[in-house]
Amino acid sequence: MITRKEIQLIKRLAEKKQRRKEGLFVAEGPKVVADLMGAFRPAAIYATSEWTAQNGAANILTEEELRRASLLQHPQQVIALFHLPSPIDRLPTAADGLTIALDGVQDPGNMGTIIRIADWFGIDHIVCSQDTADAYNPKVVQATMGSLARVSISYTDLPEYLGKYDGDIYGTFLDGDDIYATELGQNGLVVMGNEGNGISAATASHIGRKLLIPNFHTSSDGADSLNVAIATAIACSEFKRRNYVKKT
Amino acid sequence: MITRKEIQLIKRLAEKKQRRKEGLFVAEGPKVVADLMGAFRPAAIYATSEWTAQNGAANILTEEELRRASLLQHPQQVIALFHLPSPIDRLPTAADGLTIALDGVQDPGNMGTIIRIADWFGIDHIVCSQDTADAYNPKVVQATMGSLARVSISYTDLPEYLGKYDGDIYGTFLDGDDIYATELGQNGLVVMGNEGNGISAATASHIGRKLLIPNFHTSSDGADSLNVAIATAIACSEFKRRNYVKKT
Repeated sequence: MITRKEIQLIKRLAEKKQRRKEGLFVAEGPKVVADLMGAFRPAAIYATSEWTAQNGAANILTEEELRRASLLQHPQQVIALFHLPSPIDRLPTAADGLTIALDGVQDPGNMGTIIRIADWFGIDHIVCSQDTADAYNPKVVQATMGSLARVSISYTDLPEYLGKYDGDIYGTFLDGDDIYATELGQNGLVVMGNEGNGISAATASHIGRKLLIPNFHTSSDGADSLNVAIATAIACSEFKRRNYVKKT
Repeated sequence: MITRKEIQLIKRLAEKKQRRKEGLFVAEGPKVVADLMGAFRPAAIYATSEWTAQNGAANILTEEELRRASLLQHPQQVIALFHLPSPIDRLPTAADGLTIALDGVQDPGNMGTIIRIADWFGIDHIVCSQDTADAYNPKVVQATMGSLARVSISYTDLPEYLGKYDGDIYGTFLDGDDIYATELGQNGLVVMGNEGNGISAATASHIGRKLLIPNFHTSSDGADSLNVAIATAIACSEFKRRNYVKKT
């Protein structure tokens, strides 16, 4: 069972301010909860008897209680509250390999997809500007499909961090060097910008390696931009492919 | 102004059956409507005076009427009804260059993003199985950001079409050849599968060139799948990069 107060807590945790205050975030569904269990300390687990039969103890919910407590349109067996992680001691340096930096990415779906892309490409860290979407927003948590367990996310003053970074700093621009035809390192920072406005001027001033993802339009018109998660995937694929071909 | 009947028509057009019956689809916002205007025949345009001052005649709406008529959470100045295009005379062959085929892609957001990716990479055609999301679903139309004007979308019996296709047929699988290390043609069909189940058996039997997008996990666990739109972007980038490097 679940009390009215516990349901109210879950609903409140949809807001960043409340997550900070309570030190908790919400994850739902067997796949996401199982993945996060290894990386975050659970504070409470609410689940149907179907889930507990396979996964162990939890506060058992009826389907009706699950529906009332869930933040999802289609609740999936289990709702877990996890403790927010402590900020990591030090931000990534060039020795940490390829790292993604996000400058004001706003959409929770894009944020979650980018975390999943980082996980796929073996990128362990994402450093975010303070105005980037919160990785512990329940919409982001669900969109990561569990990858949040394997990618560390930090929030910081991005221009200040870039100013101290000890490796190459890349970013995608309309006037950059063709990403397919320019040399790309095995290490470094790849900066991706806001959905509407791209990379801010304060951040851009620290980017020494401007890259262009060229389009292949067959006529004079054509799509004038790529979604930021799509651009991140293309850039990561290109960086990792080079590195990988060298290895074999 | 807009009548109650016209508002009801717009709302009905959120459903595929109603779009077929009326032969119409809905597009909203200055950017999307402007892009589609060149490719589809408008049946009716409803817009605020702000829009008409810059773009010409329309049924003028108050902000309140726009809010009531719109399918969007945040209405944007203009709602247009366009006639659905007639099915194209013939489906693409190898001579039409690189073509994407979708086998049961369900999510409207993914579908819209894939259409936008095709536009970016100069891919003129997408051939879809009958159970793929409808490209004229308003959520898809909005997600394409206008790219629907530049990419032709056909729905057909996919296995039957593949059986007659005259070029190489590629698809992504977990047991395919590494996409970064295998030869990729300038022409051909790239098949992408359903979000949960991948490519169906009936479709897979026609795929002669199985490709793998490898992950770069640094430990034994890690993301076990890529979102279908992300995988499409990585595959298109890889096909086009090869082609392009050859050209220069």
